[in-house]
Amino acid sequence: MKLCRYGTPGQERPGLVDETGAVRSLAGVIGDVTPDSLAPARLAALADLDPRTLPRVEAGARLGVPVAGIGKYVCIGLNYRDHAEEAGLPVPDEPIVFLKAITALSGPDDPIVPPLGATRLDWEAELAVVIGTRAKDVSSRDALDHVAGYCVANDVSERAFQMQSSQWDKGKGCDTFGPLGPWLVTKDEVPDPQDLAIWLDVNGRRMQAGNTRTMIFSVAEIVAYVSRYMTLMPGDVIATGTPPGVGMGMRPEPLYLRSGDVVELGIERLGRQRQRVA
Amino acid sequence: MKLCRYGTPGQERPGLVDETGAVRSLAGVIGDVTPDSLAPARLAALADLDPRTLPRVEAGARLGVPVAGIGKYVCIGLNYRDHAEEAGLPVPDEPIVFLKAITALSGPDDPIVPPLGATRLDWEAELAVVIGTRAKDVSSRDALDHVAGYCVANDVSERAFQMQSSQWDKGKGCDTFGPLGPWLVTKDEVPDPQDLAIWLDVNGRRMQAGNTRTMIFSVAEIVAYVSRYMTLMPGDVIATGTPPGVGMGMRPEPLYLRSGDVVELGIERLGRQRQRVA
Repeated sequence: MKLCRYGTPGQERPGLVDETGAVRSLAGVIGDVTPDSLAPARLAALADLDPRTLPRVEAGARLGVPVAGIGKYVCIGLNYRDHAEEAGLPVPDEPIVFLKAITALSGPDDPIVPPLGATRLDWEAELAVVIGTRAKDVSSRDALDHVAGYCVANDVSERAFQMQSSQWDKGKGCDTFGPLGPWLVTKDEVPDPQDLAIWLDVNGRRMQAGNTRTMIFSVAEIVAYVSRYMTLMPGDVIATGTPPGVGMGMRPEPLYLRSGDVVELGIERLGRQRQRVA
Repeated sequence: MKLCRYGTPGQERPGLVDETGAVRSLAGVIGDVTPDSLAPARLAALADLDPRTLPRVEAGARLGVPVAGIGKYVCIGLNYRDHAEEAGLPVPDEPIVFLKAITALSGPDDPIVPPLGATRLDWEAELAVVIGTRAKDVSSRDALDHVAGYCVANDVSERAFQMQSSQWDKGKGCDTFGPLGPWLVTKDEVPDPQDLAIWLDVNGRRMQAGNTRTMIFSVAEIVAYVSRYMTLMPGDVIATGTPPGVGMGMRPEPLYLRSGDVVELGIERLGRQRQRVA
């Protein structure tokens, strides 16, 4: 099942995607797609609906963040071996954990708005995990039981801000730096999260082309690891790192985003995003 | 005015503190103290109430986080000149911004629960600012207009986790690492946030004794600075750094918290906290 939220920013309504790829409205069934909606029993009830009985949403409707009320957005840094190499940083022996401000969240096709003073605006296609049930000190073996599903994420980064102090959060947490979606794909549609092609184009040129199988720490290991430090709540998002091909790593010169550039990215089974840089 | 939330965890009710220091229930007036409650007009309406007309809450009731639904918890690192020196780190020329997971939030007197594997559990008494109205790209001159009030915060930190990678968030964001309160003191009761004594004791021994006048970046400068990167929303919290005297800085040996230790801390005009280490 693919859950989404459609409509104008701040007034999104719940929806799901039918077998033809059209959005159907869930507004007559649930108030919104919220963390509570991700409980296994609630997801099962939605999965039992026949999408053909739901009103069809007009094609081209804007999509918002697929879950309302996300509590925290955890990120894992340098989780692809070859991305660590391109960044000139050692391969970590434990996951590097940082947080993205939730005010950075935006719809999958919303514009990226460069903050004042931005000079090194960069992209990072990532597999995002959405938590379905509370997870605290869970084992890797049990970790995926706590996952509701997956999304595409662009971990937009301003490298000058990111590297200005030792702490990355400022350069990762700017408004519009968290496109998420187009939908939340429930885990039953993702038989192996460690075998998903992931790609990103800038102005039609392929910049990132990887596969989640080259992650250093698997989704299950990451969920377990983070849960040792902070309780993961329904709706929490973890972005699991990016494969090689970010602008900062381009040779002979880094390449950063400029006004008018178009970023498109996607993950096998999870859909695609498209952002224009404002 | 001093706003608080009292009762068992997850079921707190809104309250305010009367002139005798007793908590009075606001449950008949508002549903809870939420980010919406912090709008100037709403605060003014509460300030117009005569506390003597409100039911008195029994003394000794547990206090929770003074605002429900906090969206993000921003922290400023190394914001006291002498604390930077004790940490052996250069005085920053811009604020160092990081984020604390909101699941770390806890009541002012709730126990600190060491996460599995904790070995270097430390304290940091801090002045926390609570945002009242949305702030984006605001100037230092206007910044305090967006502040609803102030709280005491203990930015509890596990130094081994904090320093394990380059990113501090993991060691700052563990569950129970965010005691906040006892109450939100509205800014009309704090004529100068840059002249507040701040202190912290461990087992009755004074460890931190500072004053917010030795901050490197003022509250107004911090609010303005953060708002350049991420929109500050009502209810958002910014902890503004800690004065010298943390356990990591003790000489000849660092001193870390152990089970059974009692941490007490407070700020002039803002009340005090007391946590036992579980």
